[in-house]
Amino acid sequence: MDLLDKTIKEIEPISKDILLKAQKRQDSLTKPRGAFGRLEDLSIKIAGIQNRVDPVIKDKAVLLFAGDHLTVHEEGIASAPIEVTSQMLTNFVTCSGAGVNVLAEHVGARVVVTDVGVATGYLDSNKIIKKNIQKGAKNMTLGPAMSRDDALKAIETGIEVFNLEKSRGLDILAVGEMGIGNTTPSSAIYSIITGISVEEVTGPGAGIIDEKLEKKINTIKSAIMINDVNKGDAIDILSKVGGFEIGAMAGAMIGAAASRTAVMVDGFIATASALLAITIAPGCQEYLITAHHSAETGHGNVLEFLKERPLLDLDMRLGEGTGALLGISLAEASVKILNNMTTFSEAEVIKAKERDTL
Amino acid sequence: MDLLDKTIKEIEPISKDILLKAQKRQDSLTKPRGAFGRLEDLSIKIAGIQNRVDPVIKDKAVLLFAGDHLTVHEEGIASAPIEVTSQMLTNFVTCSGAGVNVLAEHVGARVVVTDVGVATGYLDSNKIIKKNIQKGAKNMTLGPAMSRDDALKAIETGIEVFNLEKSRGLDILAVGEMGIGNTTPSSAIYSIITGISVEEVTGPGAGIIDEKLEKKINTIKSAIMINDVNKGDAIDILSKVGGFEIGAMAGAMIGAAASRTAVMVDGFIATASALLAITIAPGCQEYLITAHHSAETGHGNVLEFLKERPLLDLDMRLGEGTGALLGISLAEASVKILNNMTTFSEAEVIKAKERDTL
Repeated sequence: MDLLDKTIKEIEPISKDILLKAQKRQDSLTKPRGAFGRLEDLSIKIAGIQNRVDPVIKDKAVLLFAGDHLTVHEEGIASAPIEVTSQMLTNFVTCSGAGVNVLAEHVGARVVVTDVGVATGYLDSNKIIKKNIQKGAKNMTLGPAMSRDDALKAIETGIEVFNLEKSRGLDILAVGEMGIGNTTPSSAIYSIITGISVEEVTGPGAGIIDEKLEKKINTIKSAIMINDVNKGDAIDILSKVGGFEIGAMAGAMIGAAASRTAVMVDGFIATASALLAITIAPGCQEYLITAHHSAETGHGNVLEFLKERPLLDLDMRLGEGTGALLGISLAEASVKILNNMTTFSEAEVIKAKERDTL
Repeated sequence: MDLLDKTIKEIEPISKDILLKAQKRQDSLTKPRGAFGRLEDLSIKIAGIQNRVDPVIKDKAVLLFAGDHLTVHEEGIASAPIEVTSQMLTNFVTCSGAGVNVLAEHVGARVVVTDVGVATGYLDSNKIIKKNIQKGAKNMTLGPAMSRDDALKAIETGIEVFNLEKSRGLDILAVGEMGIGNTTPSSAIYSIITGISVEEVTGPGAGIIDEKLEKKINTIKSAIMINDVNKGDAIDILSKVGGFEIGAMAGAMIGAAASRTAVMVDGFIATASALLAITIAPGCQEYLITAHHSAETGHGNVLEFLKERPLLDLDMRLGEGTGALLGISLAEASVKILNNMTTFSEAEVIKAKERDTL
């Protein structure tokens, strides 16, 4: 709790003065004003976040948190066996052939994998940060998914992992996750915090259909009912209907905001973390960038609730931080425009010089 | 005409067999089926275009064609002086500080600048391919913008530049343009080919407003009326209400299709070229990828007419191939997913090996 409290207190508003200066620079570049559209806004936001008119995006990472969810397996609504979470963890750190590996390479980001709540065994690699709090979030239809202390521990683990990576150099981060069944707690969190009905924010996840989808909706509803969740208390929500990776991602977001680092928020599950993070520390929202609109049912509604317009809309629904990584590429492009384009007056100077030498 | 005819004859349908094989490979990768959404479709399309299940995106270029438009200057609806076209040409090849330079660097593409119809003088750099056909398209409210022969020459210049660049190595290209006033002929082409009213496809371009916008609409209407355009004949449309850079871009698209090369189509003006290219050679549409939805009025309507869904929607309206360059980054990501992700069976093999050695 000390680390979380301390971190929240360190969050400052992004710099309004720098926002104005960065806007002024955008307006001076050799293009019609506003012609780069949302990329201009993005570069200005990142300038405000970093508190410098020439923001830097050099060191990039995707922080992947993994955890399991006993609910979906015990209630028979899982899209895959529980072992797939740990198999994918092994996949992330050995063959570099998972979606996150491929897109991280594409955008030049390092992949940081942390186990916060995986239920089954995986390859004992030193590339996996081992911070397992519990072997899977418990069946939330029978009681809380985790204790309040463990919910706090999940969030603080996210802060710790972020702080460690920040100390290694980190200008922008993607947050992502791996966890079979984690659309289920995400939908529960969506409905509780936004007030939107469970039906409207619950979809097929990785691929369940028809009766199973109906069962998923009923599972979420009964979990919310049985746990008597306090809607204003994000730690209570996380402990009762959340997951360890969801809490850790929220922690990473709060940690990033406290050290003026832009966070690219991935899709459906990461947005549940964002809702928690914003409920805990409203000041962190300014540091979050919505990477993409997930194909999963209800993501769009929640983005509207948050008044966030995603950068991309490619019908993606993989997770693993993959959408966020593509967002990082756009963020980097936007910052290069801000920093590297010629201003009208610089272009004039160059032209004058040429005239002299021709 | 010989080169155009010969090139059109070389266009083949994209490979349906490879589309199926690439789809099969996507379905075998370690992710839920379809989880990469439109990136999967994009990778499969590029496989079909290149006629190989493991498409290559290594050599990338943006082909920029430049031309002027006397119409907008003589009718008083220009957003900038005519010299800005040539000044930007100088900017492209000297200080590398234009939007296209910055984004080309970001995605690793070379910038190829061709003058096909610039009206005023620019730096005599060997980095500019000099194929000037006429010093600006003529005032189209007084008669054709160019002769039919010159319209053909513009298209064939686009094919020639493409062929030269292809011989240097080119796996995917962006087509873009520079030309003060070229939204005006583009809107004319849009309206003639799609049948949508001039009002619905005419916007502020680089920044004209109110009375000037009304005057722009009337200018386009009178150009269409006075020239008695043959709607079914794209060469006629180009010669009467087009521009040299618009014709050259259409030529580059046709050339690319003939040599099985994917073309990333930039925004408003490039889409006018695409309409012409498709009218001339319907088979080339399969080789075109719509990079982004421009902020310019009417682009969305025409994309609907073409049944094209853009990859990006970032309110951009710069031209210079900048939207197409961002599209190339997504295309490259999609191909890396197809080629570099592990299949489920490969992942099993790896896991079995690990079990043996642990």
